[in-house]
Amino acid sequence: MEFSAKQIAELIEGVVVGDPDATVNNVSKIEDGKPGTISFLSNPKYTKYIYETKASIVLVNKSFEPEHKVEATMIQVEDAYVAVAKLMQMYAESMPKKSGIEQPSYISESASIGEFPYVGAFAYLGDNVTIGDNVSIYPNAYIGDNVTIGDNTVVYAGVKIYQGCKIGSNCILHAGSVVGSDGFGFAPGEDGVFTKIPQLGNVVLEDDVEIGANTTVDRATMGSTIVHKGVKLDNLIQIAHNAEIGDNTVMAALTAIAGSAKVGKNCMFGGHTGVAGHLTVADEVKLSAYTAVSKNVTKKDVWLRGIPAQDAKVYARTFANFKQLPNLAAQVKELKEEIKKLKGE
Amino acid sequence: MEFSAKQIAELIEGVVVGDPDATVNNVSKIEDGKPGTISFLSNPKYTKYIYETKASIVLVNKSFEPEHKVEATMIQVEDAYVAVAKLMQMYAESMPKKSGIEQPSYISESASIGEFPYVGAFAYLGDNVTIGDNVSIYPNAYIGDNVTIGDNTVVYAGVKIYQGCKIGSNCILHAGSVVGSDGFGFAPGEDGVFTKIPQLGNVVLEDDVEIGANTTVDRATMGSTIVHKGVKLDNLIQIAHNAEIGDNTVMAALTAIAGSAKVGKNCMFGGHTGVAGHLTVADEVKLSAYTAVSKNVTKKDVWLRGIPAQDAKVYARTFANFKQLPNLAAQVKELKEEIKKLKGE
Amino acid sequence: MEFSAKQIAELIEGVVVGDPDATVNNVSKIEDGKPGTISFLSNPKYTKYIYETKASIVLVNKSFEPEHKVEATMIQVEDAYVAVAKLMQMYAESMPKKSGIEQPSYISESASIGEFPYVGAFAYLGDNVTIGDNVSIYPNAYIGDNVTIGDNTVVYAGVKIYQGCKIGSNCILHAGSVVGSDGFGFAPGEDGVFTKIPQLGNVVLEDDVEIGANTTVDRATMGSTIVHKGVKLDNLIQIAHNAEIGDNTVMAALTAIAGSAKVGKNCMFGGHTGVAGHLTVADEVKLSAYTAVSKNVTKKDVWLRGIPAQDAKVYARTFANFKQLPNLAAQVKELKEEIKKLKGE
Repeated sequence: MEFSAKQIAELIEGVVVGDPDATVNNVSKIEDGKPGTISFLSNPKYTKYIYETKASIVLVNKSFEPEHKVEATMIQVEDAYVAVAKLMQMYAESMPKKSGIEQPSYISESASIGEFPYVGAFAYLGDNVTIGDNVSIYPNAYIGDNVTIGDNTVVYAGVKIYQGCKIGSNCILHAGSVVGSDGFGFAPGEDGVFTKIPQLGNVVLEDDVEIGANTTVDRATMGSTIVHKGVKLDNLIQIAHNAEIGDNTVMAALTAIAGSAKVGKNCMFGGHTGVAGHLTVADEVKLSAYTAVSKNVTKKDVWLRGIPAQDAKVYARTFANFKQLPNLAAQVKELKEEIKKLKGE
Repeated sequence: MEFSAKQIAELIEGVVVGDPDATVNNVSKIEDGKPGTISFLSNPKYTKYIYETKASIVLVNKSFEPEHKVEATMIQVEDAYVAVAKLMQMYAESMPKKSGIEQPSYISESASIGEFPYVGAFAYLGDNVTIGDNVSIYPNAYIGDNVTIGDNTVVYAGVKIYQGCKIGSNCILHAGSVVGSDGFGFAPGEDGVFTKIPQLGNVVLEDDVEIGANTTVDRATMGSTIVHKGVKLDNLIQIAHNAEIGDNTVMAALTAIAGSAKVGKNCMFGGHTGVAGHLTVADEVKLSAYTAVSKNVTKKDVWLRGIPAQDAKVYARTFANFKQLPNLAAQVKELKEEIKKLKGE
Repeated sequence: MEFSAKQIAELIEGVVVGDPDATVNNVSKIEDGKPGTISFLSNPKYTKYIYETKASIVLVNKSFEPEHKVEATMIQVEDAYVAVAKLMQMYAESMPKKSGIEQPSYISESASIGEFPYVGAFAYLGDNVTIGDNVSIYPNAYIGDNVTIGDNTVVYAGVKIYQGCKIGSNCILHAGSVVGSDGFGFAPGEDGVFTKIPQLGNVVLEDDVEIGANTTVDRATMGSTIVHKGVKLDNLIQIAHNAEIGDNTVMAALTAIAGSAKVGKNCMFGGHTGVAGHLTVADEVKLSAYTAVSKNVTKKDVWLRGIPAQDAKVYARTFANFKQLPNLAAQVKELKEEIKKLKGE
């Protein structure tokens, strides 16, 4: 779809400076803007690019006053960043949405699907699966028996949801993610042989959860592994059995939450982080990348860092000393010499 | 399926205290027990919950003497934990097992399948594939040419097994796991361009192996990458080409074993651990989470920790000193002052 | 296929010592060579195995002079390692290549496929997909709308490529890898609720790129996430939105490159490494395993190590001191005692 500068200005209450008939059909970054795209200038560090950009339209803050000639048509708005986010949303919504049921797909006779579905070819819907309205199930996705999925949820290609799991509304599950695989539970026996403990629970993803590509969420031994409302998980994350992740917590890639750990609300975890089994982490806790939580974090809104985790500021100070260690060791050696001399040795 | 307290008591040689006709069809944890479920009390820390639980039946140790009224029907057994594990196993075995061959699936004419199979829709069995008895191949799984799979093995949805790999009996491969992808082998050439070294070997998973969701096991350059009997791998683990993992070793999520490394028997590796290429790790070695093995571990039954790995106790002591570094640096500064004074400077 | 020693010697310009009619149909490592296989001796550390190996043929350097009887037929060549690599390549090329279009597969009417394709059963090719010549798309792979794939590229089973991504020629995408999933972009709102920022860009994989099993490459917010020519990524790697990886850079498993980071050419990253968002890493930079790059690396050809990254040599020295910390602390304590004595306290 194409939009003119005039149309866009109306959508976001902006003022056109230049050609109101300039048209665009995509967005771009100002530093590599292409003809037929709209870009934006918000961060002053990027100002120089507005004089060179090939983008057809650039959103700018009202306050921006060019010092040279700008080839692109500009649209002046209150806040260019907010305006572009709004436009991106509109653009995303304008894109054609897949719909209908492609063949061949496998839909159990006992499965129930709401209105306006998309079911891609080679998607599998098992017995007693219940799917809400406006749900998209992309090709090669697997929905096991007795799974329920709420309205407006998108299940991308090759997602695997084991039997009995419950997925909320407005969720997004990215390609290759796995929900409901067995928890890692084994009873050690004689001679080191392990016996599998059946994993009889399930996974509950509440509403507005986003699960990254190839991320895995294991089913509970009993009861449920719970990912609460609004949680956003990046790619390649492991959530173990019986873990619980609080509302609106976000985690970056390659993080692992071990069995029965309970993470609070509104936490922010960097990449490569970990929480050991059975621990509790309070609300609003921040973890720097490569932080390993090895005991309960009972105080909310703290920032932790290190393996094992410490207060981030304390860690930074200690680490500064760590870097000075060769120097410190040399000083101690010198002091020993001095004392020898003082003692007349 | 429903079971009565009386039936269960018979199965596990217990004594009913309460209503022998109380029925259950699921298990639950005592702290969030629901009507129609059976729970258990083993850890005394949880004793308070038995007076509140909504579970219909609770397994208790013979020795347990309630101090208040217990609403639930109790079944007294020798050891409630062992009894519940036994019951979970029975319950798991009582659940309906998928069977038959769903359509459409792709089974090469030269493939051979044993008795009592389950082959899900969109599963792919290539040329000369040989499958034992009682094997389940879930939907969207891919079994490449010349793969063999032993009896009773379960291959969950979307598993990919490359050509020529050998999977033992009683194995479980969780959704999205990949077995037999090319090892990461490249010969550096002029100007930094890499030439691929063909990976002509395969992967052998011996009997009783469990592979976690989205875990990857690469094929050998020549010969086999071998995962020995009874090994249990958690989710998102990487086993590189020509590696070998000894009997009954268990590894937690996000661990990587590099090329040609040989890990011993009965080892236990925490999450985020790693073993560098071509190293040997002895039997019964334990690694704390985030431990990086960077040289051979020749002594068995040691516990290692740190990046790079050290003896865990030594590491703990050193780390305690690390935390005191700012303090130590301050002391050295003070000593310098003292010596200056002593020298009359 | 079987080859005789005589045939092989002709292919690689070698001289047969032993039975020219000895035949092989596979390769093996000398230490576990089996009858009917060819092996090689290059590293002198392995010399002892040539007297015991069951391999039918062994490639040896011209310069090798046996001290005992060698049962196997030997083929003398200038450089046994180079010769075996050449043979492996020939062997790999001699293996039957899948071809044709298996049914059922889903190929949109608007998709275009070049000459000599392989499209496996349950593969999905969306609208306007454009595939070059000699391309293999294995079973259960998903190619979203408007994706382009260059000549000779291999897309293994269960790969998922989201709409609009561009894959070059001579690429290999291993099973379960995901290309083009949404970048992890959210705008924090009031009460900690996150709003998704639409990810409108795509992923570009240039020519000769290899992507490991279950590795994920996210699409850009705007513009493209770019993996340049000749890059080799191991399994379970995360490349975030708008990242850029320079020519011929190689990365080992479980590495994460955060959003908008730009990694240079010819870099070598160990496993479990990471680069934080928006950073730039110069060309030819080496990272030891478990290294976390937390600021720009502007100097090329440096070797970094540690969390956070430091010069590897400096790190090694500092770490040596770290290991001596308990000792250093003891020395400081002693010095304090000495000074007390000197002061007559």
